[in-house]
Amino acid sequence: MLLLKLDRSADSPMYMQIVHQIQTLVENGTLAVGTKLPPTRSLSESLGVNRSTVYRAYEELWALGYMEGRPGSYSRVRERPRVVAVKNGVEPSLIDWATRSPSAVQSLHERFPRYLPEGNGARNNNIVDFSRLDMDGRLIPAEAFRKAMNRALYRSGHNVLHYSHYAGYPPLRGYIAQRLRVHGVSVTADEVLITNGSQHALDLVIRLLAKPGAGVFVEAPTYANMLPLLELHQVRTVGIPMNDDGMDLEALESSLEGERPAFVYTMPNFQNPTGTTTSQEHREQLLTICERYGVPIVEDGFEEEMKYFGKVALPIKSMDHKKIVIYLGTFSKVLMPGVRIGWVAASSECICRLMVMKRFSDISSNSLSQAAVCEFCQQGLYEIHIRRMHRVYRKRMQTMLDALSQYMPSEHVSWTRPNGGYLLWVRVHSNNVESAAVYEALRTYGVMVSRGEFYFADPVPEPCFRLSIAALDEEEIIEGSRRLGAALHSVFPR
Amino acid sequence: MLLLKLDRSADSPMYMQIVHQIQTLVENGTLAVGTKLPPTRSLSESLGVNRSTVYRAYEELWALGYMEGRPGSYSRVRERPRVVAVKNGVEPSLIDWATRSPSAVQSLHERFPRYLPEGNGARNNNIVDFSRLDMDGRLIPAEAFRKAMNRALYRSGHNVLHYSHYAGYPPLRGYIAQRLRVHGVSVTADEVLITNGSQHALDLVIRLLAKPGAGVFVEAPTYANMLPLLELHQVRTVGIPMNDDGMDLEALESSLEGERPAFVYTMPNFQNPTGTTTSQEHREQLLTICERYGVPIVEDGFEEEMKYFGKVALPIKSMDHKKIVIYLGTFSKVLMPGVRIGWVAASSECICRLMVMKRFSDISSNSLSQAAVCEFCQQGLYEIHIRRMHRVYRKRMQTMLDALSQYMPSEHVSWTRPNGGYLLWVRVHSNNVESAAVYEALRTYGVMVSRGEFYFADPVPEPCFRLSIAALDEEEIIEGSRRLGAALHSVFPR
Repeated sequence: MLLLKLDRSADSPMYMQIVHQIQTLVENGTLAVGTKLPPTRSLSESLGVNRSTVYRAYEELWALGYMEGRPGSYSRVRERPRVVAVKNGVEPSLIDWATRSPSAVQSLHERFPRYLPEGNGARNNNIVDFSRLDMDGRLIPAEAFRKAMNRALYRSGHNVLHYSHYAGYPPLRGYIAQRLRVHGVSVTADEVLITNGSQHALDLVIRLLAKPGAGVFVEAPTYANMLPLLELHQVRTVGIPMNDDGMDLEALESSLEGERPAFVYTMPNFQNPTGTTTSQEHREQLLTICERYGVPIVEDGFEEEMKYFGKVALPIKSMDHKKIVIYLGTFSKVLMPGVRIGWVAASSECICRLMVMKRFSDISSNSLSQAAVCEFCQQGLYEIHIRRMHRVYRKRMQTMLDALSQYMPSEHVSWTRPNGGYLLWVRVHSNNVESAAVYEALRTYGVMVSRGEFYFADPVPEPCFRLSIAALDEEEIIEGSRRLGAALHSVFPR
Repeated sequence: MLLLKLDRSADSPMYMQIVHQIQTLVENGTLAVGTKLPPTRSLSESLGVNRSTVYRAYEELWALGYMEGRPGSYSRVRERPRVVAVKNGVEPSLIDWATRSPSAVQSLHERFPRYLPEGNGARNNNIVDFSRLDMDGRLIPAEAFRKAMNRALYRSGHNVLHYSHYAGYPPLRGYIAQRLRVHGVSVTADEVLITNGSQHALDLVIRLLAKPGAGVFVEAPTYANMLPLLELHQVRTVGIPMNDDGMDLEALESSLEGERPAFVYTMPNFQNPTGTTTSQEHREQLLTICERYGVPIVEDGFEEEMKYFGKVALPIKSMDHKKIVIYLGTFSKVLMPGVRIGWVAASSECICRLMVMKRFSDISSNSLSQAAVCEFCQQGLYEIHIRRMHRVYRKRMQTMLDALSQYMPSEHVSWTRPNGGYLLWVRVHSNNVESAAVYEALRTYGVMVSRGEFYFADPVPEPCFRLSIAALDEEEIIEGSRRLGAALHSVFPR
């Protein structure tokens, strides 16, 4: 006979009172494993409650693992499931995740242990931060975008909260194809695949083209996040030196004589990290060389829209008669990164294979963000925003170039003079100065830069670092340049 | 001497008139490649325009590839870049993308050639479609979600349009950890990784644990999109037969004696495709077996929230003292798929390695969607929505079960009786009836199902198919069941 006391005036429903009391009896050992529980009919009679109340309590106890048995048969107390208590995850795992992980994952895990973004907008006022290429949040058209998103939702309702097409939201693919024509690139919507940002596009392209052990040619220095990604795919990174005009094409040719890489990765505009833009001629030559060797080019046009000093050549993709160029674009560096929309423009034969991989690795991309960005663009707001970005950054970059001329020890240091984008590259020319001394001085003077070694697969040839003006206004740029100059002056004996 | 005519009353700015006229002269051959262009000073004088106007025109011509030379030196007409005209992408590529692609990509590309979603909401009124597991769009809380998104944007502004934390928006990780406690799972926010839907989580887990050639054990039948994903990763799929209670545990043990797979993949609730839910005891046994063999379990809780007939056991993860379980969840099947938010809950040692891979393959997930879903959940709207879903689907499933009992030829056909979710599994028991005849009859009677062979890596043991009630209301369910019954009756000789 079960001794239960029900309180009809309590907040807790009757069936839950039964559940809790039986739980307690099991937990304190009064009801041992194997004990028969009374049939619902007899318990309901003895408690003076409806039989369905008892039935519901038993269902709950069964779900919680306190009872075994099916309705109709006798129910018995069973050994409870060993539910884990809330703890801080300090207990060891039976699985050794380190040895189970691919060696590249383990190595990257050890090398990038706590490198997490600090929360956007969190700034340390004592430091001028030239290290971050994130967009200046103050320039993100949040309100206009909010309205575009509301329009998309009002018009399409739940349709934009459903899965979208594997290759991307069709009107956005169409818009991108059309927008690329402004840059001389002729592709149809079928030749465009939307990705979750352009890092995702790189991941898909590597998966498609580069088997483990294959080589990929990159500029040296190159995009810092490309290097670990290639490592994850067990691909060999071959750095082709950059000179002032871009990738050294003679060095490229002689490397191509040695091996055929899976592809050549290049950023013709405002290269990350150097800020270098190649000439039309350089682009033609690069294309001709890769055509001759039958090697695909992955052209990363991450800041195609940021040509604010005029005089910028057309993308390599614009001349791609033989369809060897896989062109990557993104909204992250000009509009906003948080929507995670990038794209690939390439031969439809290439696109449909990338799509197969995308489809089975994430089904489809965020529908609402695609619809909202499309709405924003189709209303002409993207072009207005680009013009604003040009005005702002033309001024910021000019301020930066002027301030560097004023403050930097130009006899020991050189820097690039970009015609767009956010990035400059500084090289320290001295046999006597180590990188460590440069970084120590920068820290002392309260200025952050992005270290040169992040951008090379091989050892860094000389002290060098990247400056980004993406998130700084003119006042910050001037103050930062002053500190930079003072810091660098301090490392050279007068 | 250049013969140009400027029209001061035209809409086109003067510099663009110069650009267009020189372009025309080059294109019709009047200005041959190598011809010197007049210096900016003399051209500006002869045209009577400001010198900066000519300078700007020359910059534009340089950018367009019509001129070579740097400012200051003589400019000459150069061979124009070979810009590709807008065409329909019919020209062949120099690269043979088929042979460059991994064989799995090529094979999937050929087998899934045009399988594209038809646009949501597009229904063919002559067909009752039991094939789609997509949520019923009519039940997506679009308006409440729109408001949550606006609140997130008003409160956080551009911060929710920026990159978010690699592992996911921290408040959402916290909410998910807390929500999992309702299901008996105790994890901290650090043990949660947000992914772009749970297909993406599967992709990351396979990348982490399964090297090419490794085996992965799955239920047979299993989730259809898991099979091509394993194939993409060159992983061997080993199907463990299902019986009425879930994966056959004896078969599992004897397979484990033969080889240690990278992991065991299981869906304890409303298994896709069969609708089977395993008992607490089955879950404990499965966990014990995998602990004994040191094999991780990937538990896919894709419809954890859809337990509407009561009596559902706790997740395997709730008992995971030894931290061998990688638990997957998603908002796609209960709230909305278009936000692409899924998650992994696992040992923090496992999570941080998955995060490394995620970080370098897509930087971070959609910030605004995460913030909006978090807002929606924290306001209690997710729980209200779940209750609504339970009410709706409890009724729909009961309608379905009643209608099947009424219409189906139960002497030849059996089906599962799920206690939640959207799925039922139908098996045809007959030595004389081929799958083709069954599908032909279904087509004739205007009812669509999801074919059994999609869910097996190996040949299908008997004619079988999946029914989903996800997108159908009661009227549609009754009509569909009537047609199903009639179709199946038609294949059996009376």
